[in-house]
Amino acid sequence: MTEQAFSRARLADAGEGITLDELRLAGRNHAMPLEALRYEITPVGLHYLLVHYDIPAIDPDTWRLTVGGHVARPLTLDLADLRRAPRTDGVVTLECAGNGRALLEPRPLSQPWLDGAVGTARWTGTPLAPLLRAAGPLPGAAEVVFTGSDRGTERGTEQVYARSLPLAEALRADVLLAHGMNGGPLPPQHGAPLRLVVPGWYGMAQVKWLSSITVVTEPYTGFQQATAYRIKQRPDEPGEPVTRMLPRALMVPPGFPDFMTRTRTVDRGEQLLTGRAWSGRPPVTRVEVSCDGGESWAAAELGPAAGPYGWRGWRHRWRAERTGEHRLLVRASDASGRTQPTEQEWNLQGMANGMAQRVDVLVRG
Amino acid sequence: MTEQAFSRARLADAGEGITLDELRLAGRNHAMPLEALRYEITPVGLHYLLVHYDIPAIDPDTWRLTVGGHVARPLTLDLADLRRAPRTDGVVTLECAGNGRALLEPRPLSQPWLDGAVGTARWTGTPLAPLLRAAGPLPGAAEVVFTGSDRGTERGTEQVYARSLPLAEALRADVLLAHGMNGGPLPPQHGAPLRLVVPGWYGMAQVKWLSSITVVTEPYTGFQQATAYRIKQRPDEPGEPVTRMLPRALMVPPGFPDFMTRTRTVDRGEQLLTGRAWSGRPPVTRVEVSCDGGESWAAAELGPAAGPYGWRGWRHRWRAERTGEHRLLVRASDASGRTQPTEQEWNLQGMANGMAQRVDVLVRG
Repeated sequence: MTEQAFSRARLADAGEGITLDELRLAGRNHAMPLEALRYEITPVGLHYLLVHYDIPAIDPDTWRLTVGGHVARPLTLDLADLRRAPRTDGVVTLECAGNGRALLEPRPLSQPWLDGAVGTARWTGTPLAPLLRAAGPLPGAAEVVFTGSDRGTERGTEQVYARSLPLAEALRADVLLAHGMNGGPLPPQHGAPLRLVVPGWYGMAQVKWLSSITVVTEPYTGFQQATAYRIKQRPDEPGEPVTRMLPRALMVPPGFPDFMTRTRTVDRGEQLLTGRAWSGRPPVTRVEVSCDGGESWAAAELGPAAGPYGWRGWRHRWRAERTGEHRLLVRASDASGRTQPTEQEWNLQGMANGMAQRVDVLVRG
Repeated sequence: MTEQAFSRARLADAGEGITLDELRLAGRNHAMPLEALRYEITPVGLHYLLVHYDIPAIDPDTWRLTVGGHVARPLTLDLADLRRAPRTDGVVTLECAGNGRALLEPRPLSQPWLDGAVGTARWTGTPLAPLLRAAGPLPGAAEVVFTGSDRGTERGTEQVYARSLPLAEALRADVLLAHGMNGGPLPPQHGAPLRLVVPGWYGMAQVKWLSSITVVTEPYTGFQQATAYRIKQRPDEPGEPVTRMLPRALMVPPGFPDFMTRTRTVDRGEQLLTGRAWSGRPPVTRVEVSCDGGESWAAAELGPAAGPYGWRGWRHRWRAERTGEHRLLVRASDASGRTQPTEQEWNLQGMANGMAQRVDVLVRG
C-alpha cells in the first residue's frame, strides 16, 4: 500500500530512474522483441500486450454479449451464436498509443514502453456492422460503447474498461468481433472469448473481454475516453482524443546484442537492414533510413503490405565500412502526408509518440 | 553506445531507480501475470520468458542437431528424425534463477524480475537418454554441454549460449528434447525448433534453440556456467553453481488492482486465496499463508501436483473482517526440508532468491 495509490499521474523528475510502479507494469505487459519484426504475422507470445487491470477469468459457456442501448431490437448472444455468424478475418497491425513513452523527457509515469509495443495478427471473427444493424440503432444514435470485463481503479476511479467509437466508425465493414488469433482460439491475454478489432486505431480502441455493446446518443465520457488517451500539454485542458496510429517504421537491430545494454555488434561490410512500417492512415508511402545519426537519409525499398491495415516490410543495404560506433535511424511516411519526427513531440500522457527509432551499432573490423 | 557496454555487472546504489538497461530487458522479457496462476498449464504468451540475446532465425528444414564429443558414435539428426523418435511429454514448472532479483537490496543490475518469472507447460519431445546412449559416451565422460544458437556478448565475452549438465543428470529418464509446447509446435521464443527441458532445474539449464550436444571429460567452464549463475557474495569468489529450484509459493492477488500501483482492493468478508507452489526437490509438502504481515501463519489446503515436476495448487480462506490495509504473505516447504525465507537471502547475482511473496490489499467495508 503506497500513498501513490490514489494520486494523480505525474512526470518523472529530471534524472529520475524508472520507478517500481513502472517496473511492475513492464514486468506484466510486454513489448514485441524487435527481432520478431522478421515475422509478417507475429507469433502468439511475441505480439505486444497491455492489460490495464487483471486478465479476467471468464467461463466461455456462461459468457454472454449484449447489444443494447439506443436500439430497436436488443440482442443477447452466446459464443456459439458468434461462431455461427458470418466468419471473416483480417491481418491487422496493432500498436499501443503509449509506444515510446519511456523515451520522452520528461517521462510520463505509466506503462514504460520503449519502441516495441506493436504486433500484427490474423484476427478471426465476425463483422460488427451486421450485428449492429440487426439491433437497429435508433435515430439520434451517436456512438457505440464497448465494455470489457476487466475491473480496476485508475487515479481513484473504479471502473470496468470501456471505450466508445463514433457510430460511423463502428459500422465500418472491417471492424471485427474476434474470437480467434493466428489460426487458433483467442488467447486469454488477448481478450478471450471475444474482443473488438478496429483496424487503423491505436490499441486502446481494441476492447478485450467484451461483455456489452451499447448504442448511445451522447459522447461517452468514461475515464478511458475523457481522461485517459488524450493528447494534451497541461492537466487542466481536455486535450484531443487519441484515434488512429501515426506512421512508424521499426528496424530489426542488426548483428548481435550485448546482454545488458542491448548495444549491437556487426562485422564490417555490407549489412542488409530490414524492418516493417505501418500507419493508421495507410498505405505507408515511404521509409527512410539514416546510417549517420540523422544527418542524411536514403529511401528504403518497400515490400507489400500484410493487409489493408497490416504493416509493410522494408529493406536497405548499409555499407558499414567505417569501424566504430554508428547510430541508425528509420522513419516512415503515410498516405495522409504525415512523416515520423526525428525528435520527440511531447505530451502529458506520452500518447501517440512517433519519434524515429534509434539503433546504436558497433562496427568491428 | 554507452560506456557500460563492456563494464562489469554492478549493484544499484541506495535508492537508485531502475535503469534504462534494466527496462530494456524488462520490456523484451516478461513475467507471468500472477492472475495466470489460475491456469494449471500456462497459456503460451503468459509463461515467463527470458531471452539472453536475440531470438535466432532458424530454418527448420536445414537445421541439424549434432551429438558428439567424447562418444563412440557421433550423430547428426534433423527435425524429422527427432519427431520420429519415441515421443513423450511432461508437465514441468520452469522458473528463472533470477526470479525476485529486483526486490533485493542492494539490487543486482540484470534482468529485473519481481515475482513472476515462472510458468508451467506441457512439453512434448523425445527423451534425451536414448539418444545419448546411441552416441555412446566413452569412459571418462563427465558432463554434457548443450549449445544453443543465440549469440551475444556478456560482460565483454562474445558467446553462443551454452550450459552443461553432469552426465548422470543428462541421463535422467525425464530429461527431454522438446519440439512441442502445450499441444502445439514449440514457439520461436521458447526455443524452436528444439530445446532442452530438465525438470526441477532453474531456467538457465533449459537450453533453447539447441544446435549441439557435446560429451566432455572435464567440467565445462563457459561463461554461463563458471561466471554467471553462481551464488556468491563477492566478485572474487567462484561461488556455488545454481542448480535446482528452491521451493516457492505464489498467490493470485485477490480482488482488483489499481492500474499504476497494482495495490489490490477487496470487499470485506471471506476471501478464498488461491495459488500454486513448486520446488525442484518435489513434492511441495506445505504451504503457509500469513494475513497479518508475517506475524502468524496458517497451513493452506494443498491440491494435487500438475506432474512430478509440476506445481501444486493451494487454497486458504481468509476472513477479511477489518477494513483497511493488510499485507498477505505465502511460503512453501518441500520434501528436502527447505522452507522459503520471509526475508531476503542476498547474493551478488540475485540468483535463487526464495523470499516469500508479499501482496498488499485494501479491505473496504
